[in-house]
Amino acid sequence: MKKSGKVYLVGAGPGDPGLLTVRGKELLQRADVLVYDYLANPRLVDLVPPRCEKLFVGKKGGSKDNISQENINALIVDRAKKGKAVVRLKGGDSFVFGRGGEEAEELVAAGISFEVVPGITSGIAAPAYAGIPVTHREHCSQVTLLTGHDAEGRAITQVEWDELAKGTGTLVIYMGVRGLADNTKALIDGGRPKDTPAALIEWGTHPRQRTLVSTLEKIAADAEREGIGAPSIFIVGTVVELRKKLNWFENRPLFGKKILVTRAREQASELLQKLSELGAEPVPFPTIEIKDPPSWKKIDAALSRLFQYDWIVWTSVNGVERFFERLQKKKKDIRDLGKAKIAAIGPATGEALQARGLRVEVIPREF
Amino acid sequence: MKKSGKVYLVGAGPGDPGLLTVRGKELLQRADVLVYDYLANPRLVDLVPPRCEKLFVGKKGGSKDNISQENINALIVDRAKKGKAVVRLKGGDSFVFGRGGEEAEELVAAGISFEVVPGITSGIAAPAYAGIPVTHREHCSQVTLLTGHDAEGRAITQVEWDELAKGTGTLVIYMGVRGLADNTKALIDGGRPKDTPAALIEWGTHPRQRTLVSTLEKIAADAEREGIGAPSIFIVGTVVELRKKLNWFENRPLFGKKILVTRAREQASELLQKLSELGAEPVPFPTIEIKDPPSWKKIDAALSRLFQYDWIVWTSVNGVERFFERLQKKKKDIRDLGKAKIAAIGPATGEALQARGLRVEVIPREF
Repeated sequence: MKKSGKVYLVGAGPGDPGLLTVRGKELLQRADVLVYDYLANPRLVDLVPPRCEKLFVGKKGGSKDNISQENINALIVDRAKKGKAVVRLKGGDSFVFGRGGEEAEELVAAGISFEVVPGITSGIAAPAYAGIPVTHREHCSQVTLLTGHDAEGRAITQVEWDELAKGTGTLVIYMGVRGLADNTKALIDGGRPKDTPAALIEWGTHPRQRTLVSTLEKIAADAEREGIGAPSIFIVGTVVELRKKLNWFENRPLFGKKILVTRAREQASELLQKLSELGAEPVPFPTIEIKDPPSWKKIDAALSRLFQYDWIVWTSVNGVERFFERLQKKKKDIRDLGKAKIAAIGPATGEALQARGLRVEVIPREF
Repeated sequence: MKKSGKVYLVGAGPGDPGLLTVRGKELLQRADVLVYDYLANPRLVDLVPPRCEKLFVGKKGGSKDNISQENINALIVDRAKKGKAVVRLKGGDSFVFGRGGEEAEELVAAGISFEVVPGITSGIAAPAYAGIPVTHREHCSQVTLLTGHDAEGRAITQVEWDELAKGTGTLVIYMGVRGLADNTKALIDGGRPKDTPAALIEWGTHPRQRTLVSTLEKIAADAEREGIGAPSIFIVGTVVELRKKLNWFENRPLFGKKILVTRAREQASELLQKLSELGAEPVPFPTIEIKDPPSWKKIDAALSRLFQYDWIVWTSVNGVERFFERLQKKKKDIRDLGKAKIAAIGPATGEALQARGLRVEVIPREF
């Protein structure tokens, strides 16, 4: 029997890679094929294993150059029928304006099993990162998520806007810059007070997030003046006022700063995370690269007469790891070190040796 | 200067622990204090380190026995002022009917810095797990999330229901069983057709998820007959029809089965995950426990004369790990093994030894 594949419809979340789900991360790390869109944070693509086939099917609303939905569906079905684990990664949540339902229907029609992994939708997360809870018991008890135009690109009707306008609930409009002037006018015409607080959140949850606060009446003009572009979430309602107090993300000490991190890729992750937490956009720029030597000849020669040495000094954790990897590859035994005494530069290097059963004689006080 | 604490308002997601965010998991794993609610999946609480102070403040709508919101706020502020990293964990998303906004306002007033980590809200994820996308371009272009009653427990007004009733967008009602008969009547009175498809999803995303599909007119009676209780999400709209095709979660081969897993806790995780993926609810029930021996005397004696042995046989990865831990603790050196030959039972045991630089002479074909 042929091994049958499976498709995972994974929501990538709004951009901040920390907002990917645990399940989504797991699936990316063992994907055979990744089919991904324009909006997914590029860093997420790095999570797949080297053997994974990466297929970019970048759909951008309205553009003619894109792969059609039919072709995307055909691609996914083809790879799954070949027995592959296919991750279909989309920004936000596949089932919230993500056409995940349509892709799932295609999979059912083709007899392919699938799993849906919801993602954090940007319509809720971008406001949260701008300091705006979409619900708050002193403001509203409902929130409506919508797009400013329907799937074919038509604006929604005035009748629909009238209904939305009459309520007091929060409105969250995806792809919020498109048709902004028309949409705000339609809401005012329908009865929402023109001084209702409104905000646009550009690149929500990204290090370059930018938030424009205004009113329903003025926001279209303000957005044009400030040059707010896509991707943006448009939010309307008195909850926008809470941002004055709750704006935590853009107020972090290093917000808006790009910082180059020159450490080797293998050793940068902790620093990258600390910088992110302080609000910076760390840019990995390794000036050190850890590579195998061009030739193993001299090292292998030394490995084969380890017993001749009186002292062996390790200078880094990387050195310890590579030494043991090579030793294993050459089917040598650690006991071939004989009576050599062992020194380590730096306490972490010493710990790495001790964890492998070696007693370290010397760790210098300064390294 | 006193080290100042920080509060993390973390959304736990809808129940499936795989739907926690990567950032939420990281923060739980290094929390000093965890303040958590009734709905958060109990398995998530196990992620915190042993030193973490766990405070259950289980709020259940309406019950009088609970800790008041004021007391919860005071508790969080107190721990943060003591310099602790406090994770405030709530089911779903803290900013979607989660009172996260109010808690954040208290933190601002107390001068405590905070971070918001959105969670997957159950109003979107529970339908997704029931095979119901909340939006679909052939059905609707908007979805409204609401509670059937306001924060003080009052039902929302008929005027508000009328507005909701007139649209064609999907409605998702949190805490959906409460007031179900009144709410469905209000929607029909407001103009939603009584044959509009509707569903209740009980324990959405949990292994015991149950979905009832009916119509706006009949669902209250059906729910009573079937005994659907809290927690439940109530969803109204033609998207409910998609479940007929897309019901993936409840159709998995082992769905609804509880399976005892008797492996040692340290070794069960892979099996637990495979069972979950097939739809089962695996119950860890370790009949083997890996413990230190009551006395190290004999082992230490053997370690001090390792050179006397001709062969050393390791029978498990756990054995290898414990051996090296003890060796390091006793400041011994792996080379004290002298000329002993090395055997491993099982290929994983062999790999564990090789990774530590030992050449394994024998791995029996069967173990």
